[in-house]
Amino acid sequence: MIRPATDEDWPRIWPFFDATVKAGETYAFPTDLTADSGRSLWMESPPGLTVVLEDGDSILGSAKMGPNRPGHGDHIGTASFMVAAEARGRGVGRALGEYVVQWHREQGFRGIQFNAVVETNTAALRLWESLGFTVIGTVPGAFRSPVHGYVGLHVMFLPLA
Amino acid sequence: MIRPATDEDWPRIWPFFDATVKAGETYAFPTDLTADSGRSLWMESPPGLTVVLEDGDSILGSAKMGPNRPGHGDHIGTASFMVAAEARGRGVGRALGEYVVQWHREQGFRGIQFNAVVETNTAALRLWESLGFTVIGTVPGAFRSPVHGYVGLHVMFLPLA
Repeated sequence: MIRPATDEDWPRIWPFFDATVKAGETYAFPTDLTADSGRSLWMESPPGLTVVLEDGDSILGSAKMGPNRPGHGDHIGTASFMVAAEARGRGVGRALGEYVVQWHREQGFRGIQFNAVVETNTAALRLWESLGFTVIGTVPGAFRSPVHGYVGLHVMFLPLA
Repeated sequence: MIRPATDEDWPRIWPFFDATVKAGETYAFPTDLTADSGRSLWMESPPGLTVVLEDGDSILGSAKMGPNRPGHGDHIGTASFMVAAEARGRGVGRALGEYVVQWHREQGFRGIQFNAVVETNTAALRLWESLGFTVIGTVPGAFRSPVHGYVGLHVMFLPLA
């Protein structure tokens, strides 16, 4: 089940959020995040939204979404995703991705832009491509992967209008 | 003369900053900025920097610069520029652009990324291309221009390493 996240969910999001950021392979997030600053970064307020995918008492993944830019750019959305390591390969990312696309359609956005998909994150890349996103361009060497060194960041886009 | 901006400069930056944002053709900034929230948005702290181009007692333009992303993306910089309407066509943007490129070189950045150059802002586009930037990709219709309607946003990049 995917539902809006509440502040009470954060203690069950933070462990896999923190592990993902510390692994450092998928997001250019600050490297000194605490549980508090992580919450500020992840938990969106309207017009944005943060959701969790819950299975019984466990939170297996989370996504945040909302306008990519303010003002004259706010008709294009964006989103970020976190999936618990133990839940990978079970369709959690896909379910969250489909939710995010549907949410943007319902809210009247004209497209969704991912600003920085790490090019070595092939699982995410394939998933977004299967949802209709295409790579608009790649900023060479814009991400320092602990495993792969300098790798590119893809800008991806899905038109909705 | 280009020099770091101080808080005392803001009253002379705000008029052309505000006029540029209100014209709405070049930046996806919030449309409800006040002098205070505009200052928070424009005046950078380390590791970023905001500069002004001064001619006598007049400030003709300003630029802000710094890491485009935190964490594993902070080796790529970014920048934004504002030029007073009455000073356009006098090389203010070029002087600020050259300063910004030099600053990033000195700070050891590996490249500079512009995230959202409005495709109808041909003066800026030509200027950045003349400084060596190329268009990495264009997000279609990502900007609502009051004059031109939905237009694309270019991602531009200059490698420095």
